[in-house]
Amino acid sequence: MPEASDPIARMALQLARLPGIGQKSAQRLAYHIAGLPLDQVKDLAAALWQGRKALRFCARCGNYTQEEFCAVCADEERHNGQICVVRDARDVAAMERMRDFRGLYHVLGGTLSPMNGVGPEDIRIKELLARLSTENVQEVILATNPDIEGEATAAYIARVIKPLGVGSDLEYADEVTLAKAMEGRREL
Amino acid sequence: MPEASDPIARMALQLARLPGIGQKSAQRLAYHIAGLPLDQVKDLAAALWQGRKALRFCARCGNYTQEEFCAVCADEERHNGQICVVRDARDVAAMERMRDFRGLYHVLGGTLSPMNGVGPEDIRIKELLARLSTENVQEVILATNPDIEGEATAAYIARVIKPLGVGSDLEYADEVTLAKAMEGRREL
Repeated sequence: MPEASDPIARMALQLARLPGIGQKSAQRLAYHIAGLPLDQVKDLAAALWQGRKALRFCARCGNYTQEEFCAVCADEERHNGQICVVRDARDVAAMERMRDFRGLYHVLGGTLSPMNGVGPEDIRIKELLARLSTENVQEVILATNPDIEGEATAAYIARVIKPLGVGSDLEYADEVTLAKAMEGRREL
Repeated sequence: MPEASDPIARMALQLARLPGIGQKSAQRLAYHIAGLPLDQVKDLAAALWQGRKALRFCARCGNYTQEEFCAVCADEERHNGQICVVRDARDVAAMERMRDFRGLYHVLGGTLSPMNGVGPEDIRIKELLARLSTENVQEVILATNPDIEGEATAAYIARVIKPLGVGSDLEYADEVTLAKAMEGRREL
């Protein structure tokens, strides 16, 4: 490649690191961005960088936030004794879109995966147990994904929290399934 | 959405402006970027913004470059009397990957499209004619895309340059077709 296209090659290289964007898509996007007005590329780059810089983890639940606590944890009315355990912050957003669940969340930040060397100490299970001993929790809803690792993670958590006398289970696939599962959840 | 996710919403909004990235993909990417190390997001944002800022159009052919002339135009050995007319800089990169064509390019920056209000004065046809009167050009290769607009554009250019006594035509689909077409091109 001639050196003139290096900025485009560098753009494509970075874009190809994103999930679901292959080499070809990355190059197509890079050429598109090269042809955009300066202001629009500035807005894109700023949204990504400033956005990432502004985000941290909620000190209570692990959700993304710009403050010490996320919007859910900061809402006193949501402290109703329910904690919904999810894999990541995207699951919180999906649950919030349903406007159905009125309790708090706990974001694990991953799922147990012995194949990938992810053990109980690598996801926020310890933090969940700490919350169960300090917060007034009546019910834990395990809303990990309905795949093998998600179910294994839910089963593991159910086992370690069972002695504490709280718990409930549900299957999680999409928003509709989740809403139905929330209605039909049962005691562990 | 709680205000905590605003940076992610802003990321998703910007990403969704890119071609081929829908609302859902944009949100998925935004959450992915939120979870990346700061350095990696900085590299991505910098590649896009610095890259875009570094690019300008070659003063001769309209290809992307960081200098006054692109790498092809700056190469004296490429001034062999051939000009390959393409729609955009991506086509130049595709041709260069074939390492077959050893002449210069002319990037139109679009195709004629009466439906979208793109007329001959909106793409770099005037600049092509100027080159034909100032550069020593023996052959113009029309390598616009093989769709209706690309072919109409090639036909229009062939008509306006025919009196000048230079020209050749070819069908352009992909790299292989292009290579074959380059071999089999004929006098207009």
